[in-house]
Amino acid sequence: MPSSPIRRLAPYADAAKRNGVHVYHLNIGQPDIKTPECALEALRNIDRKILEYSPSDGYLSLRTKMVGYYAEYGIYLSPDEIIITTGGSEAVLFAFLACLGPGDEIIVTDPFYANYMAFAISVGAVIKSVKTSIKDGFKLPSVEAFEEQITPRTKAILICNPNNPTGYLYTRAEMKQLRDIVKKHNLFLFSDEVYREFIYTGMPYVSAFHLKGIEENVVLIDSVSKRYSECGIRIGCLCTKNKMVRDAVMKFCQARLSPPLIGQIVAEASIEVQKSYLQGVYEEYLDRRNFLIEGLNRIPGVFSPMPNGAFYTVASLPVDDAEKFCIWCLQEFRHDGATVMMAPASGFYTEPGEGRREVRIAYVLNKEDLGKALECLRLALETYPGRLNG
Amino acid sequence: MPSSPIRRLAPYADAAKRNGVHVYHLNIGQPDIKTPECALEALRNIDRKILEYSPSDGYLSLRTKMVGYYAEYGIYLSPDEIIITTGGSEAVLFAFLACLGPGDEIIVTDPFYANYMAFAISVGAVIKSVKTSIKDGFKLPSVEAFEEQITPRTKAILICNPNNPTGYLYTRAEMKQLRDIVKKHNLFLFSDEVYREFIYTGMPYVSAFHLKGIEENVVLIDSVSKRYSECGIRIGCLCTKNKMVRDAVMKFCQARLSPPLIGQIVAEASIEVQKSYLQGVYEEYLDRRNFLIEGLNRIPGVFSPMPNGAFYTVASLPVDDAEKFCIWCLQEFRHDGATVMMAPASGFYTEPGEGRREVRIAYVLNKEDLGKALECLRLALETYPGRLNG
Repeated sequence: MPSSPIRRLAPYADAAKRNGVHVYHLNIGQPDIKTPECALEALRNIDRKILEYSPSDGYLSLRTKMVGYYAEYGIYLSPDEIIITTGGSEAVLFAFLACLGPGDEIIVTDPFYANYMAFAISVGAVIKSVKTSIKDGFKLPSVEAFEEQITPRTKAILICNPNNPTGYLYTRAEMKQLRDIVKKHNLFLFSDEVYREFIYTGMPYVSAFHLKGIEENVVLIDSVSKRYSECGIRIGCLCTKNKMVRDAVMKFCQARLSPPLIGQIVAEASIEVQKSYLQGVYEEYLDRRNFLIEGLNRIPGVFSPMPNGAFYTVASLPVDDAEKFCIWCLQEFRHDGATVMMAPASGFYTEPGEGRREVRIAYVLNKEDLGKALECLRLALETYPGRLNG
Repeated sequence: MPSSPIRRLAPYADAAKRNGVHVYHLNIGQPDIKTPECALEALRNIDRKILEYSPSDGYLSLRTKMVGYYAEYGIYLSPDEIIITTGGSEAVLFAFLACLGPGDEIIVTDPFYANYMAFAISVGAVIKSVKTSIKDGFKLPSVEAFEEQITPRTKAILICNPNNPTGYLYTRAEMKQLRDIVKKHNLFLFSDEVYREFIYTGMPYVSAFHLKGIEENVVLIDSVSKRYSECGIRIGCLCTKNKMVRDAVMKFCQARLSPPLIGQIVAEASIEVQKSYLQGVYEEYLDRRNFLIEGLNRIPGVFSPMPNGAFYTVASLPVDDAEKFCIWCLQEFRHDGATVMMAPASGFYTEPGEGRREVRIAYVLNKEDLGKALECLRLALETYPGRLNG
């Protein structure tokens, strides 16, 4: 199994830090935004004598609050249709375990969140990919491209919307296209919507649960990590109206006994956060996105499409090999005692060699630091020995 | 996949509670012991602005404290050899994922902790069992019984010591026997030692890591849940001196990003708990064990061996079918407005029909409640229509 492209350069970063170098982390989706005060307050006020197991599907009070949260997005669920998981990661794993057998196939758009591969390998499922390209901003491929990949073993399509790593947001027309394929071939639609709050088009979000006629096919994967900047509490959920899937998921939930107790308390409090918090976070990311993408495209030889969602972009660089370049930045390059860390995009593609000149950049730093990171990138590209010219 | 025998009767218990019946929970290993005050204090004092991801293998400060904890048991590890997981459950899953491929076999003594089966199914591995029997107190079967099960696909032996569900504690001679088999056939020895604190023989604990000559074969599975009564924080670990296994485990750790942040803070504080806390817990369980086993064996037709560890026992009952009896207790039987809930032992055996007259009982209630639960059990057995006489 390949290492995580997000974390595998960590030893180089650690070595740089030990030498006193400041590393601008654009490689990982760890926001610098503060967790809501109401969540931190709930944490401080925990007054329990025993930190006991919670129910395997999570506390009913949390699931009930989530019903209200989803209703604001026009997603109508009952508490029974929501199963609390240890982060969105566990929701992906359990969706795969419940719906896929060994050798079953799942279609994903390439490049994709690399950890999906790890979970597919864990359950013996096979990922088939349909290619998207930086040239047209990673838009959804044609119906034909999907149907070329469909075999008797195909059980599901998996989307991440808005997308990690590309920041791409599916249009309503694209979502309908997916609906039609799912319906025609009776597939599951696994929809990872953890970046639902982070869309920059001004248009309402289109969830997989908004698609008519495939309600029983949809398995929603979600997490409170990003929207409330509380990645560390490890609280996500899996939502589905399909009772057979829920029953299968519950067996895996029972096997691991329960999701984190304290995280559930924090998550439940977070749902009550004032609208102004989310509005502030949204404006901050919008501002960062515009600043980053403009800055990237001003660097000679660099290109990034304008992502409409999440807080990532995939950019192409004028280098021989982006992974080598990223390691070189950590090992060799210094500017004012600092350097920049990015995730080589090749790790997000299935085919070796694809995305070789691309990196994933997370805009999870404030604008001042983003500016310094961009300056590091610009100067590093000027002196990198493997720079391509022309 | 079968449902968890520990949790699958939950709907019957919920129904009884809705009708105002008090249920004595002897079915689940949720201790009623208070979490150490130093742990709760650490929780209240968390002063962070962002609840961020932790490292995939857990905080170095926690792993370093664990080195000291293990050293007191004569288990000598470096922080690198300890990987923090989301409960002991995730440690089992990752051990299986790292060491077993689809179709690979693992030998477990029957009856065993039922969730091992769920994790084996998750990774496509096959559990082969060697039988132990209530008649001789669930002692380790002969070398021959193990060797009969060994095939070219056998990759590991898995033990839980002290044992859940039986409470059995392996003797030094039995541990040496396991060592010899592991060494001769070059197998992994997965050793689930989460009940290490709960042994009642007065003899030093024999860990898999104490066995000479198989240091690279041992994968230790551990959890802070039971020893500090903090099951809800979901912090466990996987320890191994085998670097290839660690590297493989780390890929799965990276895929799920990080173990729970807040739980790690609580666990780290718990390790500092005063010896008097652990001594008090030990004495409490010892007292409960003696009270429970004596009480069980006084009920006509009931037999329980004396367990030397953990806080479970498997008892045989004079009934046609223990699962039917457990459900009947929840649905039909009432004494002073209360009833008792136990886990049918059949769910811990691989072969259908085995353990049909046995239940697993966890002594996780105080003596007064244990006494009332025993009284319920005694009276229920007197009136249960499926009682066997003779």
